[in-house]
Amino acid sequence: MENINLCQLLIPEIKQLIEEKNLQELKKVLSEINPIDLAEALPQFPKEQQLLLLRLMKPAQLITVFEELNPPEQQFFLEHLGDETIRPLIDGIPAETVAALLNKLPKTIVRRMSKLMSDQRTHTVAMLPVFPKSTAGAIMRTDFITLTTDMTAKAALERMRANMRVRRDMKVIDALYVTYDDGRVAGAIPLHTLISAPPEIKLRDIMQTVSGFKIPAITDQEEAAKLFTKYKLTSAPVVGPDDRLAGVLTMDEILKIVQAEATEDIQKLGGVEALHDPYFQIRFLDMIKKRGLWLSVLFLGELLTATAMTFFEHEIARAVVLALFVPLIISSGGNSGSQAATLVVRALALKEITIQDWWKVVRREFVAGLVLGGILGTIGFLRIFVWGLYTNIYGPHYMGIALTVSLTLVLIVMWGTVVGSLLPILLRRWGLDPAVVSAPFVATLVDVTGLIIYFVTATFILRGTLL
Amino acid sequence: MENINLCQLLIPEIKQLIEEKNLQELKKVLSEINPIDLAEALPQFPKEQQLLLLRLMKPAQLITVFEELNPPEQQFFLEHLGDETIRPLIDGIPAETVAALLNKLPKTIVRRMSKLMSDQRTHTVAMLPVFPKSTAGAIMRTDFITLTTDMTAKAALERMRANMRVRRDMKVIDALYVTYDDGRVAGAIPLHTLISAPPEIKLRDIMQTVSGFKIPAITDQEEAAKLFTKYKLTSAPVVGPDDRLAGVLTMDEILKIVQAEATEDIQKLGGVEALHDPYFQIRFLDMIKKRGLWLSVLFLGELLTATAMTFFEHEIARAVVLALFVPLIISSGGNSGSQAATLVVRALALKEITIQDWWKVVRREFVAGLVLGGILGTIGFLRIFVWGLYTNIYGPHYMGIALTVSLTLVLIVMWGTVVGSLLPILLRRWGLDPAVVSAPFVATLVDVTGLIIYFVTATFILRGTLL
Repeated sequence: MENINLCQLLIPEIKQLIEEKNLQELKKVLSEINPIDLAEALPQFPKEQQLLLLRLMKPAQLITVFEELNPPEQQFFLEHLGDETIRPLIDGIPAETVAALLNKLPKTIVRRMSKLMSDQRTHTVAMLPVFPKSTAGAIMRTDFITLTTDMTAKAALERMRANMRVRRDMKVIDALYVTYDDGRVAGAIPLHTLISAPPEIKLRDIMQTVSGFKIPAITDQEEAAKLFTKYKLTSAPVVGPDDRLAGVLTMDEILKIVQAEATEDIQKLGGVEALHDPYFQIRFLDMIKKRGLWLSVLFLGELLTATAMTFFEHEIARAVVLALFVPLIISSGGNSGSQAATLVVRALALKEITIQDWWKVVRREFVAGLVLGGILGTIGFLRIFVWGLYTNIYGPHYMGIALTVSLTLVLIVMWGTVVGSLLPILLRRWGLDPAVVSAPFVATLVDVTGLIIYFVTATFILRGTLL
Repeated sequence: MENINLCQLLIPEIKQLIEEKNLQELKKVLSEINPIDLAEALPQFPKEQQLLLLRLMKPAQLITVFEELNPPEQQFFLEHLGDETIRPLIDGIPAETVAALLNKLPKTIVRRMSKLMSDQRTHTVAMLPVFPKSTAGAIMRTDFITLTTDMTAKAALERMRANMRVRRDMKVIDALYVTYDDGRVAGAIPLHTLISAPPEIKLRDIMQTVSGFKIPAITDQEEAAKLFTKYKLTSAPVVGPDDRLAGVLTMDEILKIVQAEATEDIQKLGGVEALHDPYFQIRFLDMIKKRGLWLSVLFLGELLTATAMTFFEHEIARAVVLALFVPLIISSGGNSGSQAATLVVRALALKEITIQDWWKVVRREFVAGLVLGGILGTIGFLRIFVWGLYTNIYGPHYMGIALTVSLTLVLIVMWGTVVGSLLPILLRRWGLDPAVVSAPFVATLVDVTGLIIYFVTATFILRGTLL
């Protein structure tokens, strides 16, 4: 990718130009760099120089850079930049970002920002609806252009042009939604339809209604993301409790949500509570809490293995050789169970399978478990048989031990597979998150039952010889 | 979501209308349903009725429905629909889809399709560049509108309009790219910029160049998806080996890739080779292969636990009580290791950490392991101590056993955490996929070493009492 490292390449040149105080040239160099790269490179400059760079950026660039920064950096710049830099900035960033800033910043900066904002902006920000976190309403954009059904195509285009003149530096939303006079959503018009329509035609006659989804603002953001994926939307109108158009949900927000959701599932499947923050940004104690809790729960479950083993202490004492295969057996059950659980959890998340399919899944996994268990059982049998034949480590009854271990492997792999696949579906059925059935969780469950399967099998096969 | 179940609700009505042969009304009902819902509902009708429904759909709807179907269904419809239905269909679906169909279908249908295609379409399809699977070139769209730098805004809009008249039913790409006369990419123009520009201005004077990424067609699709996420792109131009504009990559493809990538990582972390197909669609034997291979590899690794245990058979025979805690100890190491591995693998995938950070990660995980091990060690100590105090199951030396188990827990959790976090970084360093370090993989690794840690610790603490 050509532009990717442009900024990194230019850093020495930028530093040079700063030293030479060649601001004209510096301005030109900056204007060629992608603002997201600029934001990424910013920490490599001392604070003084960062301020200078921000002052020299074009407003459109400055807005994107500012949105990429984290809150303390944003506060620093709002405190130290001059009025002439801040004015276009706070008029250009989305109203939602401004509202969030006003809520978080110290009073002195808030007062200064309020003074610099245009009256219209102040009004927009004050009127912003507030929706709970993680809902469509909380992540939608509200700076959409209002079009109504009885407008002509020409008038609609004129309104768009006028809007762009005012907010030249803003990212404009290409998705246009048409409302009735009372603000309820009537349909959608792609921009390309609008420009090729006859000038005097009414929007109601060219708008699309079929795929005109309305997403209620209180919809969970993950549900909204699922709609985007299923219906291949690039944007969608969000409606408030009064059913009136409240905002527009765009694809870039959805992509973020899809990524975050996958991260959560991955972390849960790994036996960690979802961190919700990047690895280096989460506070150490928070991370310990999120890992320690699950680790302790699993540990308490695993303590039952000690109890189960105690039951068979007598058998172990008589045939110590049985103890040698305990880790091998319980881990095989855990591994096959974690495979099944992972596949089913992800398939549920992607809606490839539903709870109605539980019987089809169990049937499939039962057979899969039988085959996989057969494979491991065969390897296990051969290993013990061959070692037993040529060495004396397993004693004279190696044949019985080989049989015990391989039969147990078949049973335990089948058991792990069925439990691992059924449990996520059951959780979903009970309204819980299937991703809780992590690899460690299944392993713990199968460990306890697996030990019982092992020693009961051993008792049957080895009675009269070893036991 | 209001429209979601519209189709399901309407199915009885549709069946009724089919029986009544009320085609006029049926056509009206169909036109109100989202084509993706229609495609989903189609299998609920007998084949005869499916053909009727497809004949009654509007061309735009038909195209989307067709693209949603799987290849055997597509073939069925191409065989059984009349010329008048097929003509707009094959002129409307993307050229890439047509090319793929022509490659797969039986000769008789290919001949018929070729006859029905417009000359221009036949030419476009024949000229389609072929790029390797999973590259940007393989997933880009090639039906973009060609604009050059010395065109005026007015001429560009005129070309767009003309294009839309020809391909009225097509999904039009809103992202417009401008090329030099020789076809090399010069810049991008958002449609809203174009419509608000003065009519006589040249495109070169209003196009954006700064964020004008060019993605080479042979770029891996996952790399392309990373660019979209980082730079918040909604589309990007793809260039061929001659550096000329070859196609456009759009967000809906990228969303699919991001989802598929997360699925792959999740499956690998669960100890399965990536399936690449939905759960119920992958062939049973293929699934067994993908699971059985890893399961067998892990099993072979786990066989080393039996070897390790054999070394300490003598100690177990003298103190059977030691065997009781083997599952507890190795699973604790495995669980903490799988947590660390999961976090690091995902952080690497999201570029939250890089291989340069390895030392920071190890330091953090070392402390985390110490704390987490301390927690588990304390629980373990208390459990054995209390049981030992009030019962006789652990014999007279329960204090020594409690000490051995809790100290081992601290060591093994630290070991698991450090190994689990370091290994993915090492794999990335060696150019391998970090997601191979699955929960089962780490567990297996830690199991073998954990047993050694356990029995060595036991030998030190219990020498002279139990051992």
